[in-house]
Amino acid sequence: MNPGHAGGGPSPVPPLISLLTDFGLTDPFVGQVKARILATCPWARIVDLTHAVPAFSVEAAAFWIEKSYVHFPPGTVHVCVVDPGVGTGRRILLVEYQGQIFLAPDNGLLAGIAARPGASTRTVSTQFLASAGLSGASATFHGRDLFAPLAAMLAAGQAAPGDVAELVTDWCHSGWTAAARRGQRIHGRIILVDNFGNYFSNIESISLFDCKKPSVLLGDQRLPWARTYGDCATGTLLALVNSFGVVEVACVGGRAVDLLGLEPGAAIEVDCSEP
Amino acid sequence: MNPGHAGGGPSPVPPLISLLTDFGLTDPFVGQVKARILATCPWARIVDLTHAVPAFSVEAAAFWIEKSYVHFPPGTVHVCVVDPGVGTGRRILLVEYQGQIFLAPDNGLLAGIAARPGASTRTVSTQFLASAGLSGASATFHGRDLFAPLAAMLAAGQAAPGDVAELVTDWCHSGWTAAARRGQRIHGRIILVDNFGNYFSNIESISLFDCKKPSVLLGDQRLPWARTYGDCATGTLLALVNSFGVVEVACVGGRAVDLLGLEPGAAIEVDCSEP
Amino acid sequence: MNPGHAGGGPSPVPPLISLLTDFGLTDPFVGQVKARILATCPWARIVDLTHAVPAFSVEAAAFWIEKSYVHFPPGTVHVCVVDPGVGTGRRILLVEYQGQIFLAPDNGLLAGIAARPGASTRTVSTQFLASAGLSGASATFHGRDLFAPLAAMLAAGQAAPGDVAELVTDWCHSGWTAAARRGQRIHGRIILVDNFGNYFSNIESISLFDCKKPSVLLGDQRLPWARTYGDCATGTLLALVNSFGVVEVACVGGRAVDLLGLEPGAAIEVDCSEP
Repeated sequence: MNPGHAGGGPSPVPPLISLLTDFGLTDPFVGQVKARILATCPWARIVDLTHAVPAFSVEAAAFWIEKSYVHFPPGTVHVCVVDPGVGTGRRILLVEYQGQIFLAPDNGLLAGIAARPGASTRTVSTQFLASAGLSGASATFHGRDLFAPLAAMLAAGQAAPGDVAELVTDWCHSGWTAAARRGQRIHGRIILVDNFGNYFSNIESISLFDCKKPSVLLGDQRLPWARTYGDCATGTLLALVNSFGVVEVACVGGRAVDLLGLEPGAAIEVDCSEP
Repeated sequence: MNPGHAGGGPSPVPPLISLLTDFGLTDPFVGQVKARILATCPWARIVDLTHAVPAFSVEAAAFWIEKSYVHFPPGTVHVCVVDPGVGTGRRILLVEYQGQIFLAPDNGLLAGIAARPGASTRTVSTQFLASAGLSGASATFHGRDLFAPLAAMLAAGQAAPGDVAELVTDWCHSGWTAAARRGQRIHGRIILVDNFGNYFSNIESISLFDCKKPSVLLGDQRLPWARTYGDCATGTLLALVNSFGVVEVACVGGRAVDLLGLEPGAAIEVDCSEP
Repeated sequence: MNPGHAGGGPSPVPPLISLLTDFGLTDPFVGQVKARILATCPWARIVDLTHAVPAFSVEAAAFWIEKSYVHFPPGTVHVCVVDPGVGTGRRILLVEYQGQIFLAPDNGLLAGIAARPGASTRTVSTQFLASAGLSGASATFHGRDLFAPLAAMLAAGQAAPGDVAELVTDWCHSGWTAAARRGQRIHGRIILVDNFGNYFSNIESISLFDCKKPSVLLGDQRLPWARTYGDCATGTLLALVNSFGVVEVACVGGRAVDLLGLEPGAAIEVDCSEP
């Protein structure tokens, strides 16, 4: 608790809240979430990670929060709402990790972060929601009616994780999973196509630690390995470790998805056998 | 007036401005509006409600501002620009209601808020625009050249509603209208399809106050009534009161619009006759 | 340098940073850029100009930054990243003009601003990047890993342009170019279609300075000249000088692009011969 700091401003560093949802930007859903946050924590800085997670795609949301939090400073509160089970009895998870706080439905979205050494995992208690006047939340828009005020209270120092949530160990463990390496081969799959038409795989760079000349197979193509897009001529399909730490397939100056036509879920393989 | 507070910051609570337009996010129109706001009121917090109102759809904009303002704290200045008449003689309306200020073209967008008991409604005077150096505004982008500086001056305390606008009673009264109840039946219509493919109707929850078992007809379907999406199995079409206070038709885990194929404007009926 | 102002807040005016990219809003690319900015400069205000520049379209980005900066206050730092050459040896340009700072890849994006009288143009030095710990940046996401921390340091007063970059004269000069006038005729072309389906040309209003009755030809149409959209009946195609200072072709209450079907690049002509 930090009652001398109510509302979170002005101070040396304003509170920071990130949002990651499947709400889209067509309707004012995200705007209403922000209104609720600022009503409680007027000095909060709010960063939109994305609101274009495919509807109900817990896996894509899990991938992106794990690949994004590292760029935020300690003290950030992350609100992640992809929530097919809104209005049912599913719990709200609160994870603390490396000085940051993560809030999400307990549906696997935070499984990867909760599993890291040093993370502590709690579920928001119904007693706290009642005491904060949040029991009457709408049954269909918890992002606005529960997550937003909860994040604002945490960011403003009006509540601490221990006040709002109880430690648990039985949180939902399914989520995004990296490809496992077996000997010199890694069998992964495509998990998303980005704005530039590039394919992101679930093969982490760390699994390539001893590969001198990785060889990548996607669809019926064997792809050259590169350090960056500019290494090859325009129109070339290539594979590289991207700036999110996974193997990516891109077309220089073009859209790989237009050339290959593969959907998320397609198999991708890295062969590390070449010395 | 609050000259000791020029620019609006730092103070216990920074000024808050919301934006609701049909400008889209493809071009830097909204960015230029924000630049103009921050040039006058550097500490303003700006919340995007939506910039994806269908072009020139005053009704959708009217619906969303009425369903959104309640989540904002007192003092908020709302800028609503859906403006088919930009550059003509249409006036700029300024409505004060519950400690919030609303700015919009006088085309019905604010009709519902202006009609509420306790609301005061003004039109921005040409004298004020001249004195503020805003007479030379572009004929095609009043959002940036008139609304933005006006909102910034109001938010920063550099001008008060009484300084900039004169009380009027002859504002444009058309706008979004809720369905009227006749006996035990309510004949409404679909007013929008949201990001999840759900249908929003113009039937307000208050008109169902005594309905124990509402029965909803849309297209050729009679739909089960639910409290939340999770009440039915995946793929089920259902009706509920949504978190914006209107009757909504949704498909659990799917998109109702893909199953029903109806457009905004379609008739929807609620039957409250069952005891 | 302004070491007493580390982090950029609280002060009479918070630092202001604008972003203009082709990153899109589907993936959390822009959110990660903002995280990096706020980690260094927590009080920075960040305005999105647009993230929907067509992929790799340096010309559209050059047009929009030239048509946008004038709305921002002095001190603003603009980050413009449309960067087909990311990861190659292309330099980072820093332009100072009218008290604002512009950062972009040296690919023509800032050519128009760098060419103005009074502008000073520098390239970011590898020594500075090394001293700031930015040498290990990813090869594929300089927006997040180089531009964001650089802009944040400049905005926070932790570094001055002279500290980070060396004056140059050999920057890339291609970019967006306005149509040249020859006698009473101006032969231009369409450079973009905006959110409302309007055509923007590269014909600047200044080239029409003595035209009393301009006559505009686009496709096989001769278009009436107007001051604003409301000057003609719904459905009319018209031409006007828009609020960005170029000749625009619009359809009143509709989408010119749907009527004319022309793509960017199409020829447009203004005839100023009529007295």
